[in-house]
Amino acid sequence: MLVAPYIDAFNPPRRTLMGPGPSDVYPEVLAAQSRPTIGHLDPLFVGMMDELKGLIQYAFQTTNEMTLAVSAPGSAGMETCFVNLVEAGEKVIVCRNGVFGERMRQNVERVGAIAVVVDNEWGEAVSPTDVEAALRAHPDAKFLAFVHAETSTGALSDAKALCALAKQYDCLSIVDAVTSLGGVELRVDEWGIDAIYSGSQKCLSCVPGLSPVSFSPAAVEKLKARKTPVQSWFLDQTLVMEYWSGSAATGGKRSYHHTAPVNALYALHESLRLLANEGLEAAWKRHADMHQVLRQGLEGLGLKFVVDEASRLPQLNAVYIPEGIDDGAVRSQLLESYNLEIGAGLGALAGKAWRIGLMGFGARRENVALCLKALDDVLN
Amino acid sequence: MLVAPYIDAFNPPRRTLMGPGPSDVYPEVLAAQSRPTIGHLDPLFVGMMDELKGLIQYAFQTTNEMTLAVSAPGSAGMETCFVNLVEAGEKVIVCRNGVFGERMRQNVERVGAIAVVVDNEWGEAVSPTDVEAALRAHPDAKFLAFVHAETSTGALSDAKALCALAKQYDCLSIVDAVTSLGGVELRVDEWGIDAIYSGSQKCLSCVPGLSPVSFSPAAVEKLKARKTPVQSWFLDQTLVMEYWSGSAATGGKRSYHHTAPVNALYALHESLRLLANEGLEAAWKRHADMHQVLRQGLEGLGLKFVVDEASRLPQLNAVYIPEGIDDGAVRSQLLESYNLEIGAGLGALAGKAWRIGLMGFGARRENVALCLKALDDVLN
Repeated sequence: MLVAPYIDAFNPPRRTLMGPGPSDVYPEVLAAQSRPTIGHLDPLFVGMMDELKGLIQYAFQTTNEMTLAVSAPGSAGMETCFVNLVEAGEKVIVCRNGVFGERMRQNVERVGAIAVVVDNEWGEAVSPTDVEAALRAHPDAKFLAFVHAETSTGALSDAKALCALAKQYDCLSIVDAVTSLGGVELRVDEWGIDAIYSGSQKCLSCVPGLSPVSFSPAAVEKLKARKTPVQSWFLDQTLVMEYWSGSAATGGKRSYHHTAPVNALYALHESLRLLANEGLEAAWKRHADMHQVLRQGLEGLGLKFVVDEASRLPQLNAVYIPEGIDDGAVRSQLLESYNLEIGAGLGALAGKAWRIGLMGFGARRENVALCLKALDDVLN
Repeated sequence: MLVAPYIDAFNPPRRTLMGPGPSDVYPEVLAAQSRPTIGHLDPLFVGMMDELKGLIQYAFQTTNEMTLAVSAPGSAGMETCFVNLVEAGEKVIVCRNGVFGERMRQNVERVGAIAVVVDNEWGEAVSPTDVEAALRAHPDAKFLAFVHAETSTGALSDAKALCALAKQYDCLSIVDAVTSLGGVELRVDEWGIDAIYSGSQKCLSCVPGLSPVSFSPAAVEKLKARKTPVQSWFLDQTLVMEYWSGSAATGGKRSYHHTAPVNALYALHESLRLLANEGLEAAWKRHADMHQVLRQGLEGLGLKFVVDEASRLPQLNAVYIPEGIDDGAVRSQLLESYNLEIGAGLGALAGKAWRIGLMGFGARRENVALCLKALDDVLN
């Protein structure tokens, strides 16, 4: 026998999380998550799931029937959209202005489809003009995929305009809303978004690990018309929906697919309930307001934003690291002395920028004040 | 705007979970899970992950370097093994004696590989004789895949003998240990298992949603020698390991892959720590002992086991529903009057059997007593 390791219980410190996510989790959400586990087919649990579906629909502003939480993080939500909708050989216009656009491209390639990449600079929004040129040049494209809020740079793209272009050129739109959901305006039905995914750990201030996803009726039609099986068994939405809603095949009864992450779903239910109580528009405004306070303070410290004001995300503030400043040392000092986490740069911005998150429960005056004072102390 | 739904907080009842999982969660695990969320790249968090890896290695009895928890349920753990190791066109011997063997077959097909199915009756163990015949008949087979403990029937197969056969015929073994881990003897290194996955919600008595996975050096070599990319970006273990352990490519530093389910990993750390404190052999014995008490009681009620004594799982007791008894009515009454969940039959046993789980924290005298008395009340 290999000997049992002796390990103490893990007692994490209380951090203030102002990085790119996970964000500060609502205390109510942590409490909800630790309620007693019940069975994933318990009538009370499936009732909770019905409520959860309604709450996700509200957050996305959609009436899409195929709306649920994938039992895995946002990256699995991304993969859910690509593996269900895109078949080998199909052409997808992929907008790339940061890490997550590139990840979309990799997803397209892994289903054996063809990615046509529209590149914009890191820190810029996706250009509708460039996208339209690509749509014109590739009349056989079936999808337009883009990131609404690029977590790697803090750039917000015009999802409404991009989805209108997709429609005009007969493409289905696939939208990454991991960082946007709950933090900035997002209207799935009104804007005609066909497939969208998000994450629990950003502006929803839930624990990480779940991905809200929604497919429009047109996306569902595309899924049903597939010529080949979905390559992932776990993410196959036709199977998953038999658990989330039942189906004609199961006589309307829910059937087992996988064991749902029961307690994590309690947490998501609670976080979306808090969002619904606050109201989406109030939450969007709170993020915008807190961003203005933070922006003023950061500029007062002489820090410069990576993204132009017009396409700047309130909930993810990327600022250049001043010359001569040791990136790692500053972040370590913030973490160790102030229990404050801010994010490192990612990809092209690694070592060049910090990412300061103001997400969900984290978008509060006290967090902004702490962050500004701690940065001031450490930098000056 | 779609109007915000008004929904109350969800307050689940306290159930005693004696179905096929999720099992009763340790109170310490629920407490650990609700500790403050910290960043997934926080030095304290990655230290916790190192401990967690050691704890998973202990539970599996392996020194495999590539050992981690997949950030999704057991079905995703299954898919992790197939999509990483098996390439299109390769041949896999798949043993099918219940629902999960069939799910393995579907996974093989979805990677474009060829499944050679060895069928045994539902409720029987996988027959090593039949497996050897298949290995002889298919000298080009590269994998042998089987379920150690079939959750759908309660049958335990001889993993040691099956893995020895795999080795003898130059196959890598892929083993489903979702229900076996922590409940019955399982020795990954000693038995020569090449790829194994489990679930958090069975004999580990953790919340559902995670899948411990381990690959032997031979499995890692097969992964590294792939001619084609892994079809899943999310489950690609070469990428995931850069987060779990760092890699030569990242200079030994951990790099971001996806946002880990931070709080769920706290929970798994705690449940495996409790298992290590009890000791694996003591936990195996406890499951066996409690099974004997339950068995006597169930037989006293006139109930008959689906599985022969020789291959019966202590932690999953499938018994036939007596003639004339209304399956749904009994389970509802147990749930509503006793807050006791037992499992329905699945697949070929739907409507014909109940599945009574004695898993992890649930394998206690008080649970056995409650279950026996409640069944006695309801049936007589």
